[in-house]
This record gives sequence, structure tokens and C-alpha cells, in this order.
Amino acid sequence: MTGLEVLRAIAAGELPPAPFADLVGLEPVEAEEGRVVFAAVPEPRHENALGTAHGGLAATLLDSAMGCAVHSTLPAGVGYTTLELKVNFTRAITSVTGRIVCEGTVVHRGGRVATAEGRLVAEATGKLLAHGTTTCLILSPNGHGA
Amino acid sequence: MTGLEVLRAIAAGELPPAPFADLVGLEPVEAEEGRVVFAAVPEPRHENALGTAHGGLAATLLDSAMGCAVHSTLPAGVGYTTLELKVNFTRAITSVTGRIVCEGTVVHRGGRVATAEGRLVAEATGKLLAHGTTTCLILSPNGHGA
Amino acid sequence: MTGLEVLRAIAAGELPPAPFADLVGLEPVEAEEGRVVFAAVPEPRHENALGTAHGGLAATLLDSAMGCAVHSTLPAGVGYTTLELKVNFTRAITSVTGRIVCEGTVVHRGGRVATAEGRLVAEATGKLLAHGTTTCLILSPNGHGA
Amino acid sequence: MTGLEVLRAIAAGELPPAPFADLVGLEPVEAEEGRVVFAAVPEPRHENALGTAHGGLAATLLDSAMGCAVHSTLPAGVGYTTLELKVNFTRAITSVTGRIVCEGTVVHRGGRVATAEGRLVAEATGKLLAHGTTTCLILSPNGHGA
Repeated sequence: MTGLEVLRAIAAGELPPAPFADLVGLEPVEAEEGRVVFAAVPEPRHENALGTAHGGLAATLLDSAMGCAVHSTLPAGVGYTTLELKVNFTRAITSVTGRIVCEGTVVHRGGRVATAEGRLVAEATGKLLAHGTTTCLILSPNGHGA
Repeated sequence: MTGLEVLRAIAAGELPPAPFADLVGLEPVEAEEGRVVFAAVPEPRHENALGTAHGGLAATLLDSAMGCAVHSTLPAGVGYTTLELKVNFTRAITSVTGRIVCEGTVVHRGGRVATAEGRLVAEATGKLLAHGTTTCLILSPNGHGA
Repeated sequence: MTGLEVLRAIAAGELPPAPFADLVGLEPVEAEEGRVVFAAVPEPRHENALGTAHGGLAATLLDSAMGCAVHSTLPAGVGYTTLELKVNFTRAITSVTGRIVCEGTVVHRGGRVATAEGRLVAEATGKLLAHGTTTCLILSPNGHGA
Repeated sequence: MTGLEVLRAIAAGELPPAPFADLVGLEPVEAEEGRVVFAAVPEPRHENALGTAHGGLAATLLDSAMGCAVHSTLPAGVGYTTLELKVNFTRAITSVTGRIVCEGTVVHRGGRVATAEGRLVAEATGKLLAHGTTTCLILSPNGHGA
């Protein structure tokens, strides 16, 4: 299966979701080549000690959406690993924010390395809550990139 | 209470832990001024679709340890917010890695802005699994920094 | 003068350019509210020991374009300082690349903090050479943000 | 020649310095395996329009010191390329700061990827001016890492 086929099978319930995505409450929304969307509904269980959503929630959403956006460009048999993740937190997320939607998009797709960016917005208002970038290494079976 | 007093009260069970830290399975280990340590035990529930721990686990640990390291330097009545987080993933984390320990340390503590760095290692081997940096804005009651 | 008026006066030659921009060979191209463009022509003097343009060239272009994009949104009497800069290098730049163009765009403009992103492309081919993000602190005269 | 031999030959004047390092005024100070130091003296030519050193100066120093720290670990015939660079600016640099010294140190050296961190300090006071991290891809002749 290609990366996109894997992502679509997860979204369709034909393959199990990532356990951590499940634990944190991520919901797959859309997957096309180079662009993947996840969503979540912030609840009290997502809060840090300050009463807003923990940065780990936005980081998990952005890591998922951006990593899967890279994955969606890979042919069958080719994997990837995330080298680094950068997140900017621009507005506090609370349990009154409502559903939040995270879109990851590929920026650069080279043979050995890909980068992606992501935006996390409040569905109700469209306000930007966080944004990020990531760098992924592409792992082909022969070690030469894909 | 100062930031350090809050962190120690959480570690001692006198204040409730952050709900998200609880959800993800973070355990407070140590807190002193400018340095905070959390730990976790990677389990199947932390995995992504590739069978290794989701990047969100390391990101959550680093965000917690580095943010709390900044918090530990703040006097009573002064808060902070995390502006950005950067994580490098250096080795895969799996449920055979065993307990992982994340230390956050303040690098720069200015009046309005603080930065911190973090290291996430496998307790059994000492191998570096991830590392990161963060930038926090210090929020004093009068809006002038602390 | 507002930030945008300062940037336009520099572009028009009515105010002197930044000395470092001059040293490195940056050329102001466009400035509107929230979006600023610089360009440069890579030459042998920009090379590192490996024969490609030093990462400092792309970093300087992105820092300039993104910082000035934030500056372009500021009213008269309000300054800013760059807290952090992140650059992804996606393709090697050499003296055969020809003119390179760097666009910085504001992503988030809050009262105390702004973020921006940038793209550096080869003018002849449109190929993406580098991209980045930045976080800036807004400095108002009364210390309360703008 | 190994990476360390190349760096030492440049420091000894037996190989020419990187042209961009020369243009910006970087001076090689020390190179050992996994740790490289550069210095510079901030002058009016390094300033931005705000009268402090342009962020490109610190970015160039950190990119050089961290990239060369990775290079210093490579055997003969193995190259590297910098995938990304992150810089935190913690204090303004001016022409009264005096000589500034930038140390880059390898954090993780894997077969295909290495990371490094850097610190830029004022020589006279030891104060931290900027710090950073980088991710480099290691390029072996057979494409399999080193």
C-alpha cells in the first residue's frame, strides 16, 4: 500500500488508528496527496496545570498532520521518520474553544528529505491557535531515498 | 506560591497534576530552581501507526520539563506562556526502551522572555532519544515582565 | 513613521539600508503591510568551504524578510525584537542559481508577539531553496504591547 | 582528509577560509572532534536598521560552529548538508559588546543524521547572546550514511 492508501484505510476504519492518536483524542478528517487533516475537541483532560490545553496537544496534532502529509506522498514500501518538529503557540486553547482542526501540508518533497508545515485553527472562528514545521527523513528499502 | 512551590506541591501530591500529563502518563521526578525532570514508561498506547512511540510523547515530555523549568524560576503571582517548542527526535522509542527520563533546564532567564533546553534519555542505557528548546514569555501582573 | 513607512523609505533610498544587508548584498524589493520581499544574487563571496552558499546567506535573507514583515505591521513608536529564527534548507544555492528572492509574511500578529514565515526561491525556476519561521516580541513604549 | 583535518588546515591557513566567513568577519578559534569555536568582533557594518547586530551575524556564527562541529566527526570522503537551523536571540549585540565567541558541540551523531547545539557569548562578560540547534544529514559516497 502507498502512504496515502494507508492513511485512507485508517480514516475509513479498515486499519486501526495510531494508539496515541486514540489516547489523545485525535480524529482523522481528510487525506490527499501532500495534505492531511486531523481534528480534536479540547476537554478538561487535555489541560495543563494552568487550565489551558497542554502544549502537547497542539504538538501531537501538528506532528500527526505534518508527518502524515509527508507519508501521503510515499510509494508503497517506503517509510519515513520525523527528524524534528517546531511548534509556535499563538493563542490559548481551552475547553470552550470547541473543535480544533489541524492541516498539514508538504512544503518540500526531495528524494531523501521532506518538509511540511501545519496550521491549527479553531473550527468555529477560524482563529489560528498554533502553527508548525517539520523535517522528515525518507527511508527507502535500499537506503538511497525515494 | 512561587513557581517552584507549585511544582513541588504537585510532585508531593498536595496539588493535582496536570490532567494531560496524567492522560499521557507523565510522572514528576524532580524540581529545583531552573531544572525540572519528568519521566514516563512507553507502552503500546503511546505508539503511532509505525509501531514506535508517537512524536507527541517526546514533545509532551519536553514541553512539560522545559516549561516547568522556566516556571520554577518565577516568583509568586508571575505566570508564563510557551511561545514555541522545537524537538529533535534522535532515536526511536518503543515499549522495549523502558522508562524514559526528561530533564528541562533554563538557558536564559530575562525579564520578559526565558529559554530552556531539554534532554530525553532512556534510563537503562543513558542513550539520547530526543532533545529540544523552548521560548517562553513571562507574564507579570503589571505587564512589565518579572 | 510607521514600520511600513520606514521600510518604504529604505527601499526608496531616502533612509540608509541596514549595513549588514549591504555587506551581504541584500536588495529590498517590495514592502506592504504584513509582507516584505528581499533579493540577492549568490556569488563566490557567499560560499562556504563546500562550494555552495553558506547557510548564513539564506538565514540573513529570511531573518530580514520575516522580521521586516512584522515591522511593516507596527504603528509609529512601536519596535520589535526577534526572539527566534528557524530555517529549513531544502536545496543547495550556488553562484549558478542566479537571483534568489525571499518573501516574508506575517502569520500571527498579536499584541505582544508576532510570528512570520518565509520562502526563499530561485527567481529563474521558482524552486524552493529554503523556508523559515520566526517569533518576534513587540516592544511598545509603555511596555504593554501594541 | 578527515573533517577535523580540513578544519584544522583552514584554521592554520593551509586551506583558504570559507569566503562567506571571510565576508562576515568570522575567525576560526578551535576545532576538536565534536566541538568547533568561531569568533567575531561586532562592528557598525554588522548592524541592522535598528542599530544592533543583524540576526544574520549570530545565525552565521551558529551555523558555522554547529555545522563544523558535525563536520569534525566525519571520516575522509564523507560530507554533510545542513537540513535546518534554529536560533534563539537572547541579548542584543552591539559594537560595544566586544568580541563574541561561538561554540558548536555535537549532541547526536548517528549514521545518517547528526544534531548539534551552539552557544554565542560575549567574551568580556560571558553573557549569553544567542543559542541554537541544527540538524545535519550525513552524505557518504555510497548513500548509506557513515
